[in-house]
Amino acid sequence: MAEPIIHHRGPDFRRVYGECLERLQTVCRTESDVLLFTASGTGAFESAVANLCSPGERVLVVAAGYFGERWAQIVRAYGCELSLLRYEWGEIPSADDLAAQLDESGGASVVLLTHSETSTGVVLDVQAMAAAAKDAGALVVVDAVSSLGAVPLETDAWGIDSVVSGSQKALMTPPGLGFVSVSPAAWGQNERAGLPRYYFDWARTRKAQAALDSAFTPAVSLVVGLNVALGLLLDEGLEAAFERHAALGRACREGVKAMGLELFSPDEDRSAVVTAVRAPEGIDSDEIVLAMRDRLGIQLIGGQGELKGKVFRIGHIGYCDVFDITTALAGLELALSEAGADIERGVAVGRALDAYGQALRV
Amino acid sequence: MAEPIIHHRGPDFRRVYGECLERLQTVCRTESDVLLFTASGTGAFESAVANLCSPGERVLVVAAGYFGERWAQIVRAYGCELSLLRYEWGEIPSADDLAAQLDESGGASVVLLTHSETSTGVVLDVQAMAAAAKDAGALVVVDAVSSLGAVPLETDAWGIDSVVSGSQKALMTPPGLGFVSVSPAAWGQNERAGLPRYYFDWARTRKAQAALDSAFTPAVSLVVGLNVALGLLLDEGLEAAFERHAALGRACREGVKAMGLELFSPDEDRSAVVTAVRAPEGIDSDEIVLAMRDRLGIQLIGGQGELKGKVFRIGHIGYCDVFDITTALAGLELALSEAGADIERGVAVGRALDAYGQALRV
Repeated sequence: MAEPIIHHRGPDFRRVYGECLERLQTVCRTESDVLLFTASGTGAFESAVANLCSPGERVLVVAAGYFGERWAQIVRAYGCELSLLRYEWGEIPSADDLAAQLDESGGASVVLLTHSETSTGVVLDVQAMAAAAKDAGALVVVDAVSSLGAVPLETDAWGIDSVVSGSQKALMTPPGLGFVSVSPAAWGQNERAGLPRYYFDWARTRKAQAALDSAFTPAVSLVVGLNVALGLLLDEGLEAAFERHAALGRACREGVKAMGLELFSPDEDRSAVVTAVRAPEGIDSDEIVLAMRDRLGIQLIGGQGELKGKVFRIGHIGYCDVFDITTALAGLELALSEAGADIERGVAVGRALDAYGQALRV
Repeated sequence: MAEPIIHHRGPDFRRVYGECLERLQTVCRTESDVLLFTASGTGAFESAVANLCSPGERVLVVAAGYFGERWAQIVRAYGCELSLLRYEWGEIPSADDLAAQLDESGGASVVLLTHSETSTGVVLDVQAMAAAAKDAGALVVVDAVSSLGAVPLETDAWGIDSVVSGSQKALMTPPGLGFVSVSPAAWGQNERAGLPRYYFDWARTRKAQAALDSAFTPAVSLVVGLNVALGLLLDEGLEAAFERHAALGRACREGVKAMGLELFSPDEDRSAVVTAVRAPEGIDSDEIVLAMRDRLGIQLIGGQGELKGKVFRIGHIGYCDVFDITTALAGLELALSEAGADIERGVAVGRALDAYGQALRV
């Protein structure tokens, strides 16, 4: 990414661009188009609403955290009828609830799901949720921004019409690229969709990509970087990457529990993206995050929205191994002790290593 | 930009982000907000339409090339009434024509101008054009993607309501960031604008930026790079940069003419961004561009749209000095000779150096 910028309509870039688009299809496990936009994941997600929906049409959003609430805001901003299946932050959405809400509300043209809710660490059973939506005749759009490449996601096999993701999470590239897969059924609906769009228009980008061109000047350096990162991921193998992430999540949760802290994220194998931990009584999680950054050089993240100050989150996706987990746990132990929290010391790192070894049988 | 990515909601990024936003205001010569988006310039331009216009409202677009036509497409895509002041590609739009069209069509709520039409090399007199639009009571939006930092643009002094630009032209940063200045009058109109938007919503981004936050995950590495590049530009000084660009344009045009080639771009000092040159009779400009890239390692660009194959373009913005011009001219001389074109050899480089020296009085 530090190399000189190559011309985005010349042969040097076309080669990288074509390879990157193919690798995205492989990682998404789809035969369909994957459209690449220079934008955050939110922009790519918005493209799904603008390209699939029409004003007044019913769109169901499943929300159990910060990002689910954001997708509901987009649906409202575009003047669609919002059917909101809302959970408390941290709850795990269920396919039964989705089926019931679709039944009671008379269905929906599109269902929007958040695979990994980064604000809470919950990863939902997207296969079951997608099946419930398909049964009711809806198209299924999945926000896979933080899940793609970390936990299993079978776009075609599970009948997901549109998977939305971004460069900066498990795909190990700086932020700035968003992309979206589009099933044949989604293309059919796209022809009838009545919302205005230009930069995020799917058909315009598909036409350009078919000629290995981009509709607008792309973020060249990020595409070059993403192509390399996707190569790393595919060299490791998707299944191996999923197992590594599950083991990292297990190691993190066991270490946190050994310290005597309470998990906010569910204690289940699927929750392999980020682990949210409740701050001990009387401790502001934002202060712990800052102290760890300033004095230890370790970056955790605080809570978003209603969880601000109440949880800290340990990310374990992408270019990450068990020693990143043990470093985070050791640093957390130190910072919490210094802040006067009553925690168990000297056990978290060992417990995490054990759990990691057991999970991978190493 | 090759450094590890810092957290976009942490103190390290906030410092860079705040400095970058301030420098953008300085370069745009405005006291108003400059809103930064992770997107191509086209995305930022679309934000101006989505945030200022309403369905059915009349919007006037001045188009004299590829990009002007693109802005007209956006206006159509959003269901506004398009009043198109269209010129042949390469013609220079005039303020009198704009005033006449505004008068005849009953005015417009917004006028969209292209400061530097990258497809033709024409830079228009944006001060006079903006004045004509303001006289008719319209807001003025200027596409300054390839002009900002290269040729004079006085956002506040010339009464321009919104200047749109991107990272990748004279601002010397990889593509992926677009931004837009918003005048107080534009904010007033924004409150009444009736088009759907979320990712590109100005008010949401203004609110976030006021807290040195970003509404969505920004392209962190590009913001870090843009901040450094803006520092380079401001260290040189905007006036010095404008003079350098005018001299580079003059050098390029004189060299091209000395070779016996015909300019497509106007032969005037304002045309300081890119020089479009007609390919000699019987020569396909795309083949010359490829030959120069493959055999000489020099990157020119061919023509866009209706100029494809007919012109080649020599860019001279940003991190560029006179030896980039002499290299381009020497390479062009060689490639055209090899292609059998009847050109004058051995004079272009010397003539370019003379013209550069005279322009800067060095």
